[in-house]
Amino acid sequence: MSQPSGPELTSIRSPRVKAARQLGKRALRLRARSFLAEGPQAVGEALARGGVVTELFLTAAARSRHAGQAAQASRQGAAVHTVSGEVMAELAQTITPQGILAVCRFVDVPLSALTAAAPRLVVLLANVRDPGNAGTVLRTADAAGARGVVFSDASVDPYNSKCVRASAGSIFHVDLVQGGSVGEVVARLREAGLRVLAADGSSGQPLDQAEPRGVLSEPTAWLFGNEAWGLPADILALADETVAVPIYGQAESLNLAAAAAVCLYASAWAQRANEGGGCRTAPATR
Amino acid sequence: MSQPSGPELTSIRSPRVKAARQLGKRALRLRARSFLAEGPQAVGEALARGGVVTELFLTAAARSRHAGQAAQASRQGAAVHTVSGEVMAELAQTITPQGILAVCRFVDVPLSALTAAAPRLVVLLANVRDPGNAGTVLRTADAAGARGVVFSDASVDPYNSKCVRASAGSIFHVDLVQGGSVGEVVARLREAGLRVLAADGSSGQPLDQAEPRGVLSEPTAWLFGNEAWGLPADILALADETVAVPIYGQAESLNLAAAAAVCLYASAWAQRANEGGGCRTAPATR
Repeated sequence: MSQPSGPELTSIRSPRVKAARQLGKRALRLRARSFLAEGPQAVGEALARGGVVTELFLTAAARSRHAGQAAQASRQGAAVHTVSGEVMAELAQTITPQGILAVCRFVDVPLSALTAAAPRLVVLLANVRDPGNAGTVLRTADAAGARGVVFSDASVDPYNSKCVRASAGSIFHVDLVQGGSVGEVVARLREAGLRVLAADGSSGQPLDQAEPRGVLSEPTAWLFGNEAWGLPADILALADETVAVPIYGQAESLNLAAAAAVCLYASAWAQRANEGGGCRTAPATR
Repeated sequence: MSQPSGPELTSIRSPRVKAARQLGKRALRLRARSFLAEGPQAVGEALARGGVVTELFLTAAARSRHAGQAAQASRQGAAVHTVSGEVMAELAQTITPQGILAVCRFVDVPLSALTAAAPRLVVLLANVRDPGNAGTVLRTADAAGARGVVFSDASVDPYNSKCVRASAGSIFHVDLVQGGSVGEVVARLREAGLRVLAADGSSGQPLDQAEPRGVLSEPTAWLFGNEAWGLPADILALADETVAVPIYGQAESLNLAAAAAVCLYASAWAQRANEGGGCRTAPATR
């Protein structure tokens, strides 16, 4: 172990444990402007971002496995606590906790910070309600090179533990923006030079036809709607164009995360081809 | 209501209810060679396939909403039972049951039936363990026009209720093949003229480089591995080529369903472009 660890916290009634545990609830996350990140990968990404982790909880076993993370958290000014397995089980949202969990400051940025970065690829979620879906879209957006992901007002809380977990660390990579009505966000993204494309299974314009028209190679904000009902007409009307992922078999539709993956990579490739093809030959970086 | 409904089953101890309920367990599904499909969409797809539904359970409310499905099931020789809400809650695997649930015969076909169909796009799952992921891949494979999906021996049971639900009816659309070692399946798919491409994040060949080489336009079987650890070296060695979905941001990887969506649509488009582009201009069919 790389620094003094202090006494092990063994009581689930410890004030620090109780305070951290309350971050499982949205209202208390909002009050503390903090959320929980579980597992070595998410904690590692939070530490890599820096200035995010305020407290780190580890079991003794995890502390010996992740001594480097404990030291890094300590250097970043975080309080590092060794906890009993019982306390970890109480704090963790997963059935088989990995023994390491961080309290993190909210990482979202104002929409103006995202638009100021002149992004070429952005995701806007409208009424996306399932936290697992939202987290998977965060991860996919990051993988496809999107600069930011905007959760507009009726979407799920990005700091929900299922969303954080499904993002696999990507919540710490992208410019995360919260709140704002879809209409307002669309207007500001368009002012920032982005073409707003709404993914809509019933659109007459298939994705593979949009590409040769040059639609995908411009700076783009992809608008994705609710898992079950998609985007209502009033929101579709806000977009510059609607685009469908074509269905070649008998499936009625794709699920949200799969459709987002196809759309975002189509944009990523079209934009890279447009830039002269340099990045089309980039090696896989995983 | 379109046919006599018989007395409402109100006891969870009714032999028919008990028999159906046991299909929640894999061993008993295997014995009965039957599984459960829940909700109007899945039941509708089972009925559209025909010869699959052997029993249909509906609450009285669902029976008036889905009178057409009840009549269709009856015409197909299925026993149709009206059940109490309590019985439905006992049978259903979902928290908010939709009041309609079918006992379906297994729909898988032998690998020889799939290969005899001269498929151009096939999915092979190796050690995929999460039923939700597997079901999402079934749905995506169907959407992208894949003819079949093979669950090789160490993969999850495709008839698991979470898999059936995530497939959103696609389990009834594709040629589903179960069992067989990955090595044996790969050999037989190759004999059938398919090029076996393994999706592997660490491959040196990004998907967008495989396409201009013509790799994607040939008849293809995509091999996808476990959610957490991917494909081990001995299985990768069975493939004709390995291909990575490139990562442009900081994400470590994509999740299985997102990677599958990107790979399968890349193949679908490359194959259609190769056929003269006719299908590249196909309208969205959702």
